[in-house]
Amino acid sequence: MKEKAFQEYYPEHFSHCYGCGVLNEHGLRIKSYWDGEESVCTFQPMPYHTSFPGFVYGGLIASVIDCHSTATAAAAAYRADGRAMDTIPPLRYVTASLKVDYILPTPLDSPMMLRSAIKEMKGRKVIVTTSLSVDGRECARGELVAVQVPDTMIGK
Amino acid sequence: MKEKAFQEYYPEHFSHCYGCGVLNEHGLRIKSYWDGEESVCTFQPMPYHTSFPGFVYGGLIASVIDCHSTATAAAAAYRADGRAMDTIPPLRYVTASLKVDYILPTPLDSPMMLRSAIKEMKGRKVIVTTSLSVDGRECARGELVAVQVPDTMIGK
Repeated sequence: MKEKAFQEYYPEHFSHCYGCGVLNEHGLRIKSYWDGEESVCTFQPMPYHTSFPGFVYGGLIASVIDCHSTATAAAAAYRADGRAMDTIPPLRYVTASLKVDYILPTPLDSPMMLRSAIKEMKGRKVIVTTSLSVDGRECARGELVAVQVPDTMIGK
Repeated sequence: MKEKAFQEYYPEHFSHCYGCGVLNEHGLRIKSYWDGEESVCTFQPMPYHTSFPGFVYGGLIASVIDCHSTATAAAAAYRADGRAMDTIPPLRYVTASLKVDYILPTPLDSPMMLRSAIKEMKGRKVIVTTSLSVDGRECARGELVAVQVPDTMIGK
């Protein structure tokens, strides 16, 4: 049985996101999974996701880090609660701040591999750090502060 | 005569960017202009640029801040040189780091207005700060460190 991605557990209200919503037919539909204590996401950009020819534009890198990190924050909160992601109440996170350091130009022709770790969990806040690499070379790093969405905003 | 946007002066090599390249038919094609000492950009997201219904996904906000800020860095460098953007040698900037603070959910149904200022220019580095608002309410703030691209990377 194929493991479900974090995003496949999102409530319907959060499944329309351009970056990660399984219901957004125009979007990137990234998928995130656990790999031990870290979370991973592999994403192949399209040829038109270019900055200058052969390399990925910075906004895509920020987008993928953003959605993968908030997904990781939610998954970590379920883990900390000791329950599966399909149990209620649903937990969802939004981004309070995102910092991306662009280390090397990111090649467009191979998948980008994101690997994230939880740096801090405190109350409704989770800090997630991410390393983005292509063919084993680190091209960008991210740090994201995620905040839990109030129950009243989650919908059904 | 209509004023040309910063992006309309880019060398061909830099005109394919998904965020701002005039030659990228899939892209956002944002346009930036001076307004006195500040630069401005107005952008109307598409309905599918959603996070949850009615609001913009964070990656789009990061993308638009990114491209508008590097455009502003280049325009400011031409200004500091006392020359027009269609003179040579061409000046282009890439992003070394980007920080975005998400203050309020950004509504999807009205244009986002970006207004940027130069915080620092030193050697090949320019720091640009941005305020993003919708209908007069500030929804996000950005700070971007831009670095001048070496001449050898600009192409013709």
